[in-house]
Amino acid sequence: MQRARILCIPNLSEGRDTATIRAVVDAVASAKVQIHHLSWDEDHHRTVLAFSGTPPQVRQAVLQMGAVAVERIDLTRHRGAHPRIGAVDVVPFVPLEGLTREQAVAWSLRIARSFARRLRVPVYLYEHSAREGRIRDLPTLRKGEFEGWVGKRLTGERAPDFGPKRLHPTAGATVMGVRDPLIALNCYIHPPDYDLAREIARRIRAERETNPALRGVRALGLWLPSRRTAQVSLNITQTDQTDMFRVVDAVRRVADAMRVEVVATELVGVVLAQDAARALQSALEMLGFDSQQIVR
Amino acid sequence: MQRARILCIPNLSEGRDTATIRAVVDAVASAKVQIHHLSWDEDHHRTVLAFSGTPPQVRQAVLQMGAVAVERIDLTRHRGAHPRIGAVDVVPFVPLEGLTREQAVAWSLRIARSFARRLRVPVYLYEHSAREGRIRDLPTLRKGEFEGWVGKRLTGERAPDFGPKRLHPTAGATVMGVRDPLIALNCYIHPPDYDLAREIARRIRAERETNPALRGVRALGLWLPSRRTAQVSLNITQTDQTDMFRVVDAVRRVADAMRVEVVATELVGVVLAQDAARALQSALEMLGFDSQQIVR
Repeated sequence: MQRARILCIPNLSEGRDTATIRAVVDAVASAKVQIHHLSWDEDHHRTVLAFSGTPPQVRQAVLQMGAVAVERIDLTRHRGAHPRIGAVDVVPFVPLEGLTREQAVAWSLRIARSFARRLRVPVYLYEHSAREGRIRDLPTLRKGEFEGWVGKRLTGERAPDFGPKRLHPTAGATVMGVRDPLIALNCYIHPPDYDLAREIARRIRAERETNPALRGVRALGLWLPSRRTAQVSLNITQTDQTDMFRVVDAVRRVADAMRVEVVATELVGVVLAQDAARALQSALEMLGFDSQQIVR
Repeated sequence: MQRARILCIPNLSEGRDTATIRAVVDAVASAKVQIHHLSWDEDHHRTVLAFSGTPPQVRQAVLQMGAVAVERIDLTRHRGAHPRIGAVDVVPFVPLEGLTREQAVAWSLRIARSFARRLRVPVYLYEHSAREGRIRDLPTLRKGEFEGWVGKRLTGERAPDFGPKRLHPTAGATVMGVRDPLIALNCYIHPPDYDLAREIARRIRAERETNPALRGVRALGLWLPSRRTAQVSLNITQTDQTDMFRVVDAVRRVADAMRVEVVATELVGVVLAQDAARALQSALEMLGFDSQQIVR
C-alpha cells in the first residue's frame, strides 16, 4: 500500500516580521514534514508556506505552527492588501496519495477540532470539508474580516464549526479544510499601473465565459506599493480544465491588445506534478506527455 | 539519511515485436522498480524504457531484463533507422539521490561485470564509468555496429571492459555506465520532408556555436517511413545550460525562416524535476521557481 501523504498550504497574516516568520517555519520543520515553498510579501502582509508529509506529521506541523502564530500575530495591529479573518487565516489540505478525499476530509475534521480547542480559536470548515448546508467558499466565509467580527457573538450562519463563539481577540478565526489543487500565479506588467492591472483582470474575467483556456480562473488587479509594481493575480481553480501556460498566454494576449507587456510571472506556493506536466505539454505542444515522466 | 535511488534508461534493439517488449517490461517490473516511461518505435526498431529504484532493485531489473532481451532479440535479423551494437544496446544510469556520482560509478562497474559474466555479452563502460584512457562516448563505441564486429576478435582499443572478447552471436555487445541527465526530444515538422528535417538539424548545429540556448544540443534530421513523417531529433546533453522550451523555441524560429512548421514535439524517456522546472520557468518567464515547488 502507498504511504498516505497530504499537502498543506497555510496562509498566515504576517509578511513583515521575519522573526515571526522564522519561528513559524521552525515550528513546521520540527514536525519533519518536507517544506516545498515559503514566501512572504509585505504589501499583502502575508506568508504562504507549503509542506507535505504523512497525516500525523502534517497534524503536528499545523498545531505547532498555530500555537506560534496565535501567540505572535496580533490582528488588531495588522493592515495589508489581502483580505483575512485570522492570524492563521486559512489552512488548505490537498491529499497527494494513499488516501481518498473522504479519508482526508474525516482527518481534517479531527485536526480542526484539536486546533480550535487547544488554541481557543473558532474554526470554520471550508470546501470539501464544509458540512452540508454551510458556507463552503473562502471569500464568503471571510466577509467582514477580522474588524467586522471582533467581539461579536458568532451565531447562526456565522457559528464556527469548532471552538469558541467569539473571535480570538488577537488571532481572529481560522478557515480549514480539504480543497482541490489550486495554482496561484502572478503576472507583473509594464507599465506598472494599477488601473491597467485591474482592466486586464476585468477582461480576463469577461473572456472566461467563452474561452476554455480560462475556465475556473479568478483574476484580480493589484498594486504593490513597496515594490511600485502592478500585478494581475490569478488563481487557477480547475487545474484539470486548463494549465498555467494557456492562462499566461491569454493574459499576454489581452495585455498586448492594451499595449501592456507581461514582464514576468511568479508561482506562489506549489504546483502538482500533473499540473506542471500539463503546462509543459502546452508550452512545447507535446504529444502524450505524462507526469510519471518527471523524475525527482 | 536519504534512501539511495538510481534512474536507468535502457535502450533495446526491438521496436516491433510487442510480445518481446512485454516480456522485457515484465522482467523489469518484477524487480519492483518504479517504471516512468515505455515507448517503442518500429522505424527506429528500438524500445526505450525508464525506471528508478534502489541500487539492488535496479541491479535486479537490469539483469532480468538482459536475460530476456539476450534470449529473444536476434541482431542478425535486425534492421532499423537507429545505430546499435547490441540487443541491450545501451544502459545508462543517473544517480537521483542518496549517492554520489563516484558511488554510482563503483556500483555500475559491479553490475556491468555481473551482466557480462551471466549473459556472456561483452560490456563496454561509457561516460563517467569509462576507465582512464578508454573511449567514453557512445557514438565512437558503437562505430561499425553489430555487423562490422561480429565474429571478429575484440582486442586493443576494442577490448571490452568485461566479458568475452567476441560479440555475442545474436545479442552483440552492451554499453553501460553512469551519465549526466539527458533530454531526448523530437520535433515533428510540416511539410513532412526528410531534406527539410536534415536542413533544420544542420542549421541548429551551426547556430549552436553562437546561441547559448543551444549549448550541448545534438540535432539530427530523420525520416520515419511507417508514419510518413519527418522529425528533428534532439538531445539536450547539458541540461543545466539550457532548457527544453528555449531549445524548441530555437527550432521553431529556424523552421519558421524556412517556412516550415513545428507541429508537435515528443519527449522520449524522462526529464528530471529540476529540468522540467527550468523549462516551465522559461516558458512562463517565471521569477525564482524552484523544482521543490513541483509536488507529486
